[in-house]
Amino acid sequence: MNVAVTKELRSSEEMEARLREIGATRYHNLHPFHKLLHGGKLNKGQVKAWALNRFYYQSSIPIKDAIVISRFRDREIRREWIHRVSDHDGEPGGEGGIDRWLKLTDGLGIDRAYVESTAGILAATRFAVDAYVNFVRDRTPLEAVASSLTELFASGIHEERISGMLEHYDFITDDVMAYFRRRLVQAPRDAGFALEFVKAHAHTPEEREAVCNALIFKTNVLWVQLDALYHAYVDGHIPPGAYVPEEMR
Amino acid sequence: MNVAVTKELRSSEEMEARLREIGATRYHNLHPFHKLLHGGKLNKGQVKAWALNRFYYQSSIPIKDAIVISRFRDREIRREWIHRVSDHDGEPGGEGGIDRWLKLTDGLGIDRAYVESTAGILAATRFAVDAYVNFVRDRTPLEAVASSLTELFASGIHEERISGMLEHYDFITDDVMAYFRRRLVQAPRDAGFALEFVKAHAHTPEEREAVCNALIFKTNVLWVQLDALYHAYVDGHIPPGAYVPEEMR
Repeated sequence: MNVAVTKELRSSEEMEARLREIGATRYHNLHPFHKLLHGGKLNKGQVKAWALNRFYYQSSIPIKDAIVISRFRDREIRREWIHRVSDHDGEPGGEGGIDRWLKLTDGLGIDRAYVESTAGILAATRFAVDAYVNFVRDRTPLEAVASSLTELFASGIHEERISGMLEHYDFITDDVMAYFRRRLVQAPRDAGFALEFVKAHAHTPEEREAVCNALIFKTNVLWVQLDALYHAYVDGHIPPGAYVPEEMR
Repeated sequence: MNVAVTKELRSSEEMEARLREIGATRYHNLHPFHKLLHGGKLNKGQVKAWALNRFYYQSSIPIKDAIVISRFRDREIRREWIHRVSDHDGEPGGEGGIDRWLKLTDGLGIDRAYVESTAGILAATRFAVDAYVNFVRDRTPLEAVASSLTELFASGIHEERISGMLEHYDFITDDVMAYFRRRLVQAPRDAGFALEFVKAHAHTPEEREAVCNALIFKTNVLWVQLDALYHAYVDGHIPPGAYVPEEMR
């Protein structure tokens, strides 16, 4: 049977190598749905379904990060982490990542109140995203930080997405891709801090294993969302109650 | 946009009618995977994947029910609900629903330690089942009870499963179907209590709406599990790290 047998992680360097291996084999840049999305193989309705569902993930991230902050008595870590909340929520009167995501859904012509209600998202999206929020609350602070490490692998996918979507879709304009362009700057900084944190605070083989498992968990959170989109909107098995794009009615 | 517009539920009779309508349109007896399963259209590897994943659901039910019990200060309700835990766990030295499920996975030739480890289940299975456990902890006691109401619709599916699987699969014997035969007796009794409970305790249109939404939530928990099985094992998109039956290697 395929029970994973992993060798003991004896140092932070071995752990980092394992983390990068997890990224190289499980990050959602490898998912067939992303290959279709970036390669211009989806129709507008399918891109809308993706943007609508992904909004639930985007808008849950600052909630997730507020929980991460709440796990630390160490003020320095809270001060380091707090900008992640603002990155997504924006400063009062300013624009944040959620606003930039809504520009994308606006640009695709999805009613904003409908997007914000999250009424039409796939149940699988909700379960996966909620699992992420619960994970950072229920696991150790070390695992909570480690679960953010997918950002180590995000730059490549954002670059590919910006150029691929602009090239292939006439309904995608430079303006609506602002979210991803901004993340090109934000994600590497955040990932760098989280990687240094887990390298400094995972002291035993068991803790290093837990860090790696937290990253595997997070890659599953991302992968499940794309599996569900593929099943519903590429293979055409839209579950009861979920969004049906005008283009697919 | 397809935002659901539901009319106000003015009585417990209107609520019951709405609950039965939800069952008739969203219960997982309607799912294509079940039609394949009961109609003999799956191969043994696909049936194994179903039984392996469903074990995580089965083995989480007594945990879910222990949380439900913990939500009530009213001792009478706790005394009524406790047999659900024993139904699945069995009395000391006796046999419960989880044992009967393991007879099924044994009969299919899946290593028992591997099943019990849950290492190979789909991440979507875990997220959906955990969402159910969290739901009964985080929502009102009324919603926690209401989320069990899928049992109102279980008898038909169990009868169909027993006869369909025995008829169509030479690797399914009468003995391994013991779980479902037993549920034919247990589920209607439990569902009857839960239905009377929500009818007696949902006093306002808002509470009746919450009861109905709890049932919709639960139908989603079941539907998502079958969507994920279909995508992985019928359409062949098995995600990284998940079980690969010998028959599909």
